[in-house]
This record gives sequence, C-alpha cells and structure tokens, in this order.
Amino acid sequence: MKNQGPGHVLRTGLCLSDAKRSALGTLSFDADSEADIEWEWESSLSLGCTVVLSSDNKGVDASPDGLKLISEVIRAKLNINVTVLMGANIANEVADEKFCETTIGCKDKSVGPILKELMQTTNFRVTVVEESDVVEICGALKNIVAVGAGFCDGLGFGDNTKAAVIRLGLMEMIAFAKVFCTNCPVSPATFLESCGVADLITTCYGGRNRKIGEAFAKTGKTIAELENELLNGQKLQGPATAAEVNQVLTQKNMVEKFPLFTAVYQICFNGHPVTEFIRCLQNHPEHM
Amino acid sequence: MKNQGPGHVLRTGLCLSDAKRSALGTLSFDADSEADIEWEWESSLSLGCTVVLSSDNKGVDASPDGLKLISEVIRAKLNINVTVLMGANIANEVADEKFCETTIGCKDKSVGPILKELMQTTNFRVTVVEESDVVEICGALKNIVAVGAGFCDGLGFGDNTKAAVIRLGLMEMIAFAKVFCTNCPVSPATFLESCGVADLITTCYGGRNRKIGEAFAKTGKTIAELENELLNGQKLQGPATAAEVNQVLTQKNMVEKFPLFTAVYQICFNGHPVTEFIRCLQNHPEHM
Repeated sequence: MKNQGPGHVLRTGLCLSDAKRSALGTLSFDADSEADIEWEWESSLSLGCTVVLSSDNKGVDASPDGLKLISEVIRAKLNINVTVLMGANIANEVADEKFCETTIGCKDKSVGPILKELMQTTNFRVTVVEESDVVEICGALKNIVAVGAGFCDGLGFGDNTKAAVIRLGLMEMIAFAKVFCTNCPVSPATFLESCGVADLITTCYGGRNRKIGEAFAKTGKTIAELENELLNGQKLQGPATAAEVNQVLTQKNMVEKFPLFTAVYQICFNGHPVTEFIRCLQNHPEHM
Repeated sequence: MKNQGPGHVLRTGLCLSDAKRSALGTLSFDADSEADIEWEWESSLSLGCTVVLSSDNKGVDASPDGLKLISEVIRAKLNINVTVLMGANIANEVADEKFCETTIGCKDKSVGPILKELMQTTNFRVTVVEESDVVEICGALKNIVAVGAGFCDGLGFGDNTKAAVIRLGLMEMIAFAKVFCTNCPVSPATFLESCGVADLITTCYGGRNRKIGEAFAKTGKTIAELENELLNGQKLQGPATAAEVNQVLTQKNMVEKFPLFTAVYQICFNGHPVTEFIRCLQNHPEHM
C-alpha cells in the first residue's frame, strides 16, 4: 500500500481521493498468512470499519482447527466486518488503466453499494455479491488449477486439454466451496463473476503458478528448487493451497471426489509422476 | 466424413467400430447452412434415427421467420431426432488423441446414454445434457465473443481485459439463450459444460474468429478483405452470426441489453470504430 501524490494508491493501482477514502475508512492490505497479519493489523485499527482484502490475498490458512479464510483470521483479530475483492486483476494492467472487472464479496447489504461507488471507475468495473466466503475461496483454489494447467503445458498438451483442465478445475472449485462454505449459500452464479471464471482463466494462461507448473513438468526439478530459481525463494501459492485442501479432504474422506486438486498435491509433494495428472482427468467423476 | 480402415472416422477424428456405429446408425456431418444441408441430407436418410451435429457446425440460420438452429433445419427436412455435440474439440488435437471433453445435447433421455457409451473414449470424455438447443446456440454465439477478444488483442489490451470479454460474452450468451430457447429450460449449469465456458475459452485464445478480429483491429481492412487474404475467401462465422443475432435483438427491441454482441456487429458491418468495443464494455449492464 503506497501513498502517491494527492490520491491514495491501493495495491491494485486504484486511485481513490482522500475524501472518498475517509468516507468509509477503507483499507486494502496484503496478508497471505496469519504471521503477516500480526504486524499489519495494528496499523489498520485506527482506520475503521471495513477491510477490503485485495486480490493480492490469495491464500487460505491451515490451522489445527482446519482450513481458515484469511478474512476469518482478520475478523477474529480486529472484530470488524471484512469485505473481499477478487477478480481478473493483474496489478500492472489495472495500474495502466486497461479495462477490467472485479468482484466485491460483502455480506453487509448496506456497505456493498458504498464500496462499489467508492471503487468503480470507467476501466475498473465492480460487481458486488453477498457470498464473500465463496469469492475468497475462489482466489485460493484457482492457483491449484493453474499449477495443473502448467503441467499440461509442460507435457505438450494443447488447447482442448487446457480448456478441460480449467473447466474441471472450476467444477472442483464449486464442489469444494459447497463442502467448505457452510455458513452461506453457494450459488453457481458467483463462479460466473470475475472472481470465478475470469480470474481462473487469467491465472491459467498467465501467472506464476502456471509457469512453475510448466517448468516442473519439463525439468523434473522440485517445487522448492523452482521457487528458489524462478521466484527468488518466494513461496508459490498453488502447491501450498493444494496441501491445505488435501488435509481437509482427507479428514472428510472426500479425496476421490476431487481428483484434480488431489493430483496436484500428490505430484508436487509425494513424488507421483506428473503424467498422473492426465490419468486423474481421464477418470474424473464429472464424466461418470 | 471419411471411412478409414476398419473403423468409421467422424470429422472430429473419433474412431468408432462398425459394430458400434450400426447399433444406432449415428451420422456426423458438416452443415453450416441450409444450402449445404440440401445435398447432404439425401444420403443420410438411409442411416437412420439420430444425427449428431459435430462441433464443426457452429452456425445458425437466418430465415425470413427469424433465427433457426441448424438442428431445426435438419429436423424439419429429415423428420428425425437430432442430437448435437459441441465442446472444446479442436479437430487435430482430438485426432491426436490429446485429452478433451465434449458435451452431447440430447432431448431423448433413452438415447443420450447410448450416445455417450458409443462415443466416449479414454481421451474423449462425454457429458450428456438435455438442453440441446442451449448446447447448439453456445457453439454459434461463442464466435461473436471471439471476434471481440481478437479486437482487444489487436488494440493491445491485456489478460484482464480478455478475461472480462470472455466473461461478459458468456453472460450475454446465457441471456440470449434465455430469450431464444423458449422451448426448453436454460440453466446456468449447461454453460459450465464443455460446450459453454470451455469451448468459449479455446475459441477466444485460438481459432480464426479471434485471429481475424485481431487483424481487423490492427490493419483497418474489412472483414471481407481479411476473409479473402487469410481464409482463402471462406466466410468467418462470428461476424455473420453477430448480424443474425442483431436482427433478432432489433426485432425484440433488446439491443441495449447485449452491448458486446451489438458492438461486434456495428464494428464489422456498419463502420463503427473498433475502439467502440471497449466503450461497450465500460457501459455494460452487468456492472450497473
């Protein structure tokens, strides 16, 4: 989060006037795990009632109590409403004011329209939905799918296979949201928003999860080696999320219903051959 | 349609044994307009009860009575049940047996499972849905969206914009299906099948509609000139379908609800500047 000139520049590159910002005390900050939140939340307390989790926050947090959304962790710490913002919003393109859409997930019906008014510009178009947990979990799960899309690219499969991976990944995202988001409805329509299908597409065609997936299939190096070589040691979110999701699915005895998510986990961490990814698609419950 | 060796090779590259084929008398043939059907249907009469329209058939037919699905035209001529097959099925990749999915739209509940059994292989995975008109209209409308995606590529927009075009295009496809397919239910779930989102993605990233759209934006040449130069005079389906769809929307006084479809039509045929495409996105009813 940076201040530039007269406006307040969010990480996404949106420029809000100070007047607009103070109207709601909106804060966007970057927090991928509970550890990051520890040092960030103190400074946000003074700002007020609503935290907007920008699309930079794509993780979930595995705790001894199971999988937690980052918004849940923040909500527990700050005791304030948390709103999420996710979508096909590659930051430099947003900053260049190239047209894009985003999705705000906001449970509070009175706050949603204000946030939309606050954030929407000619080239940054906003849709508000109430299923904020679904919006947030989309941002985490898409990275697993993108690793799988990268595997296919690395193995030399074509456009048909990639489209199938994106679609089957989307179906597993919907199914997982139904298992995981028990406090709110999970409607297929939310997956047709920018946070769903659109963000998934950009992530599976661009993005570092796809890139590392491709390199993994081509080189045979480990994920950790590729993180060091290609990301300067930064941790890739797709494999980590796959491991966290796998823990939940194992606990619930539901691993077989999510072959794509499971294959990404087994290939990244348990030495399964990358070609197993295609076998998981060939036996997908969607076609049974 | 060709016979090769012991099996019968469909245009999609699927190889069916003669035994399986004769079990149902399935016929796949290529027909993009009523004129083509005239000479093809005679030979198909002897084959029997079900025609599978392969994903090569992506058009609709504009008649004085309005827009008609190609399956309707065939049904009227042959007086037989017509089943459609659409999906992310680029032919050479199917022939290379690279993994893909497809959607069969079959109104007859007893025939659908037989067709699935007949066609599904390890690398060609089939889902059957009853909303066959929706499956078929997806195959036509996606080409309009792909022309728009090509415009964005030609204008130098990035991944965010392209994902937004695909998503907004998908929303217009759903809305148009609800207007057009009055004889069957139109459920969002069908658009999550291969015939919907997956085929749309492959068409907007590969495919000649996207390619010509890009060339149109870059060169300023007309669609007809580009068809001559890049397609040896073959007619591009996206602009033609946009014109047919526009006719329906004008009749129904619904043009404003479909700004993406409308902009593709106005830019291709009425001399509107290609930059207008982005303005149509900026004022899309999805964000109002």
